[in-house]
Amino acid sequence: MVALTDPDLLFPSEAHSRSLARNLYAGIKALPIVSPHGHTDPRWYAQNEPFPDPAQLLIVPDHYIFRMLFSQGVRLEDLGVPTLDGAPVESDGRMIWRRFAEHYYLFRGTPTRLWLDHVLAHLFGIEEPLNAETADRHYDTIATLLQWENFRPRALFERFNIEVIATTEGALDDLKWHKMIRESGWEGRVVTTYRPDAVVDPDFEGFSTNLDRLGEITGCDTGNWAGYLDAHRQRRAFFKSFGATATDHGHPTAETANLSDAAAQELFNRIRHGSEDERERKLFRAQMLTEMAKMSRDDGLVLQIHPGSWRNHSPGIFQKFGRDKGFDIPTRTDYVTALKPLLDCVGLERDLSIIVFTLDESSYARELAPLAGVYPALRLGPAWWFHDSPEGMRRFREMTTETAGFYNTVGFNDDTRAFPSIPARHDIARRVDCAFLARLVCEHRLREDEAHELAKDLAYTLAKKAYRL
Amino acid sequence: MVALTDPDLLFPSEAHSRSLARNLYAGIKALPIVSPHGHTDPRWYAQNEPFPDPAQLLIVPDHYIFRMLFSQGVRLEDLGVPTLDGAPVESDGRMIWRRFAEHYYLFRGTPTRLWLDHVLAHLFGIEEPLNAETADRHYDTIATLLQWENFRPRALFERFNIEVIATTEGALDDLKWHKMIRESGWEGRVVTTYRPDAVVDPDFEGFSTNLDRLGEITGCDTGNWAGYLDAHRQRRAFFKSFGATATDHGHPTAETANLSDAAAQELFNRIRHGSEDERERKLFRAQMLTEMAKMSRDDGLVLQIHPGSWRNHSPGIFQKFGRDKGFDIPTRTDYVTALKPLLDCVGLERDLSIIVFTLDESSYARELAPLAGVYPALRLGPAWWFHDSPEGMRRFREMTTETAGFYNTVGFNDDTRAFPSIPARHDIARRVDCAFLARLVCEHRLREDEAHELAKDLAYTLAKKAYRL
Amino acid sequence: MVALTDPDLLFPSEAHSRSLARNLYAGIKALPIVSPHGHTDPRWYAQNEPFPDPAQLLIVPDHYIFRMLFSQGVRLEDLGVPTLDGAPVESDGRMIWRRFAEHYYLFRGTPTRLWLDHVLAHLFGIEEPLNAETADRHYDTIATLLQWENFRPRALFERFNIEVIATTEGALDDLKWHKMIRESGWEGRVVTTYRPDAVVDPDFEGFSTNLDRLGEITGCDTGNWAGYLDAHRQRRAFFKSFGATATDHGHPTAETANLSDAAAQELFNRIRHGSEDERERKLFRAQMLTEMAKMSRDDGLVLQIHPGSWRNHSPGIFQKFGRDKGFDIPTRTDYVTALKPLLDCVGLERDLSIIVFTLDESSYARELAPLAGVYPALRLGPAWWFHDSPEGMRRFREMTTETAGFYNTVGFNDDTRAFPSIPARHDIARRVDCAFLARLVCEHRLREDEAHELAKDLAYTLAKKAYRL
Repeated sequence: MVALTDPDLLFPSEAHSRSLARNLYAGIKALPIVSPHGHTDPRWYAQNEPFPDPAQLLIVPDHYIFRMLFSQGVRLEDLGVPTLDGAPVESDGRMIWRRFAEHYYLFRGTPTRLWLDHVLAHLFGIEEPLNAETADRHYDTIATLLQWENFRPRALFERFNIEVIATTEGALDDLKWHKMIRESGWEGRVVTTYRPDAVVDPDFEGFSTNLDRLGEITGCDTGNWAGYLDAHRQRRAFFKSFGATATDHGHPTAETANLSDAAAQELFNRIRHGSEDERERKLFRAQMLTEMAKMSRDDGLVLQIHPGSWRNHSPGIFQKFGRDKGFDIPTRTDYVTALKPLLDCVGLERDLSIIVFTLDESSYARELAPLAGVYPALRLGPAWWFHDSPEGMRRFREMTTETAGFYNTVGFNDDTRAFPSIPARHDIARRVDCAFLARLVCEHRLREDEAHELAKDLAYTLAKKAYRL
Repeated sequence: MVALTDPDLLFPSEAHSRSLARNLYAGIKALPIVSPHGHTDPRWYAQNEPFPDPAQLLIVPDHYIFRMLFSQGVRLEDLGVPTLDGAPVESDGRMIWRRFAEHYYLFRGTPTRLWLDHVLAHLFGIEEPLNAETADRHYDTIATLLQWENFRPRALFERFNIEVIATTEGALDDLKWHKMIRESGWEGRVVTTYRPDAVVDPDFEGFSTNLDRLGEITGCDTGNWAGYLDAHRQRRAFFKSFGATATDHGHPTAETANLSDAAAQELFNRIRHGSEDERERKLFRAQMLTEMAKMSRDDGLVLQIHPGSWRNHSPGIFQKFGRDKGFDIPTRTDYVTALKPLLDCVGLERDLSIIVFTLDESSYARELAPLAGVYPALRLGPAWWFHDSPEGMRRFREMTTETAGFYNTVGFNDDTRAFPSIPARHDIARRVDCAFLARLVCEHRLREDEAHELAKDLAYTLAKKAYRL
Repeated sequence: MVALTDPDLLFPSEAHSRSLARNLYAGIKALPIVSPHGHTDPRWYAQNEPFPDPAQLLIVPDHYIFRMLFSQGVRLEDLGVPTLDGAPVESDGRMIWRRFAEHYYLFRGTPTRLWLDHVLAHLFGIEEPLNAETADRHYDTIATLLQWENFRPRALFERFNIEVIATTEGALDDLKWHKMIRESGWEGRVVTTYRPDAVVDPDFEGFSTNLDRLGEITGCDTGNWAGYLDAHRQRRAFFKSFGATATDHGHPTAETANLSDAAAQELFNRIRHGSEDERERKLFRAQMLTEMAKMSRDDGLVLQIHPGSWRNHSPGIFQKFGRDKGFDIPTRTDYVTALKPLLDCVGLERDLSIIVFTLDESSYARELAPLAGVYPALRLGPAWWFHDSPEGMRRFREMTTETAGFYNTVGFNDDTRAFPSIPARHDIARRVDCAFLARLVCEHRLREDEAHELAKDLAYTLAKKAYRL
């Protein structure tokens, strides 16, 4: 019994389809990784220091992992998740690793299991399944390897065959790590992404101070609407100078607005003076998506919208541990009504690229594929977050392709902060797509030569093109 | 490499299921086509003139096609789509055809691709894939054939083995083409369908004038509620005299109402005097569905409800090009609450037949199958529009059969204005159903003899019975 | 041609997956049945009298069956469904059975067909398909067998290898049949479940009288909030003394509330005096779910929430035939907002178990799996009601496993009042799970040894554990 790293992983069991899937995959498995959207830390590439212990690298920062353990009664403290008030939590990496290993069976049937088995086998050479008995042995292996020179970030980046990776930074970030990467002379291509939530969302912690700071950094007067917009323009240009080709926006809904300039100005004034109400905060976020789209039309940055997550659903957890603790829950999300103001404004632009994501799969066939299948400015982001999984990716293809085709989609995003899992994630996406294409060929819905071309497009070409990388 | 017309198209690749699917299909592939709902032009059958050039026949009127090309940056003008103000558009069929051929790869994985390859191969004998290089050659072949006597509408009707086809006409239509067909002595069975949206929906262009016209045509006083209803009754009878067995209603939602006669009368008066508000326009549409259902109870016409499309989503396109330009987007649609007033009124009738469609697949298993699985007056229309596709039809069966069975569904609708594609569409529906039945047999959920009987019912019998044809 | 009882029923047709599914199933098919939630009548086990005639046993009480026949024009009266006013209905079991047999083809592709063929074959030894011609013969066979000693309830209970079964009783029930079972010395384990809808839902028939009665039974003053809660506590303890390990709550929505004690008390007073409005009735139901959860935290009873059914959708049927006549229709159901007050209150408890069900499959991947995959108090009930079917159960696994894993689910519920069908229902669930696991193994997403362990967990262990049986 070995880890789940069979060469036929995720391929159909019927012989003919399997053979086709293998062929398609053989043609693309060695393609470089294009990672146009993710959350790895640019500091790693800048400083190129060894990664910390196995638990700090693989368990503690991974909300997929600790949310599942927490759902089955393991305390976050016992997994080393830091508390906001500094109350002590488990700091012994080995203990955390053991707890994880004991509960690894919980992940059966989940993508986390596939990613981790892939990482253990392909990165650390560990084929023996992880469980309570093997925990210590595997911990030692990984800990040792992480000290090696060829397990440092840049070495892994190269070994992973990453052609380009995008990180995501807030609007106020000084991009110093990106500067350091650039100045280091290292040739790995790491670009940033402009993520202005903290200066766009009035509900964001410290919003008002953030706007002051935005004014200071840019020299623009963020006390008025025109100056505030100019500040965005400046920051976007600054981010572009560090390779950014995209912006990213995480909003509770996909709502957009297209106010007159006067109305937008008045709304901004109320927001800026803190005299707005909940409805106006919503409206401001909605308006800002359209403003960002208009700026994208001008400066060519691709606009990404990641809507529909109810962040920090449990106040108990939020108060004790803060953000990003696995308590972000998808909600039903409307696109047809919500995106209309933005689409009325810029949806027919042929040189603008807006990539929309969803956590609500019911919108794939009903809303997103029909919208992306007609508006030139719109593209569909890949299956996202909870749906970044074999079944989720399969449903994405089955529910979007017939209306939007393949060419209104944008390839794969790993969207991860778990650097070691990047090859696993891309590999799984490639396999799922090859399996899907193999089915189309077997059912004579696609010719084999077309499937080969598509396999490459889905694995590589579309991401480069859609993200202008 | 040839077109996608393998004899095993859409059948599963596993040998036993494939063999079963083949057997089932062999038993039904030659059955006549019953097309109980569609949008072909009765003028074609009446005048029996040659079809226009390949582009005008196959590209320009097909919103599936031009929406996809538009989504990838091709201008509608360059595809020959006429502008409202008469601004010039491409008129050279060959140029339009070339543009289409260059972009034909965009349709990989879509039903349009399957339909078109089917048409090219089976109707025009073209096996060589369509692309930029073959475009001219194929254009010439098609253009030549379209001039032949045996490619005229009636000849194709007969070659297609169409037993009966329904067209759809507005309430004010004089049905002159239907009259001409009848008087021509030609034996092809072409019936009309009563589609009164223009005199039922206060938001329809020219609604008030339409009602005046309805009064003139019928001699009823459409200035009052009773006269207005009588006018409908007269027109329904007139349509019946031209073979209509059904009415059809395209509403933004499935909302119905069941007002008292006094309230309905008052509502009509407000609508008729243009003093109503948005809420009342909605209520009027809702009430009219119930009125139509009551008339159907009396005159036996089958009632079809096609709700949930947000028509003309882009005002820019609507202003420039008008209706039906690929910008109709599905919306989330409720049936359980919306249909209740109508069902409370006539849902238990055993001789009434109401066929409901949806663009919101999330309603299949949750709402529509449970409703149709108990209300005698209710039947489920087939997978519609964006869902009229292999994956869409498969999901329809998987999500409705276990609760509604097969016998609360009504067979296939091609619902198309693309006459040459009718055999392709029916063929694909038959293949998908045979593949689904084969799976049930292989999993021992259905006996083979039953599957044969069902294959015939789904391909032929149910449509005739449900539509009373 | 025989009934649908092939040994490979519901297994995939591809040889390798089929062989794996067979192996997995072989390891669990003989496991005892654990039935933690259902609606069989405890009187059967108490009195152990012969079951009535075949129609009264298998047709008349089964809403899956009569709803389908009704949808195709068969009158409920002709199926022996009793009227509220005592108007005569068909009383001849043979006639009812014949009508059913004539229409048995309607159930092709439905779970009812699978269950009934299973019952006919495995329980009554009938392999010949049921139809108009065989109806009488099969009726006689069944009628005869039902008179035999070894077809009485207790004998079947034992033959079915039921380890434990839970019935469901209202809060005011005296549990006399459970008492009688206990006193009889029979060793079959039959436990009750606390279902307090009639004293929790102000819209329930006789709500006020029910509360008076609750006061009488418990000696608590149900005229005030504290006394009312105490009465619940007493009844819960009483139910526990008859083996109850769970409560069950059927609400129109999943809405919960967490009012201050003062606000709850005031709300109760208004409700108790009948001076509340619709909004307050809703709020009271919402509050009571949270109260029940708090009591569960104290007394350890598992809380089940079955929301989202629009009961008695047709007033015509409700007035003539009453409740549970097949007119309960699923509605779109929100969980993320609705459950938040309850989860804020008790969702992080590790010793509390709340099992949530849904009739809205769109919530599986979007809401329920993400919630159950992080809140320790939350578990997912199996595919319910209309979704308790092969396709429904498959979709449940495909849409919940990747986010919630297998271990946040609770095994199978038969949820039935159709006692003879219990082995069929569990058998089908086991087969579907084995087929799903086989697919995971074939795609190398799970090791075979793990699949064997999971097959047992899903068929047996999880139900015992989750329901504390």
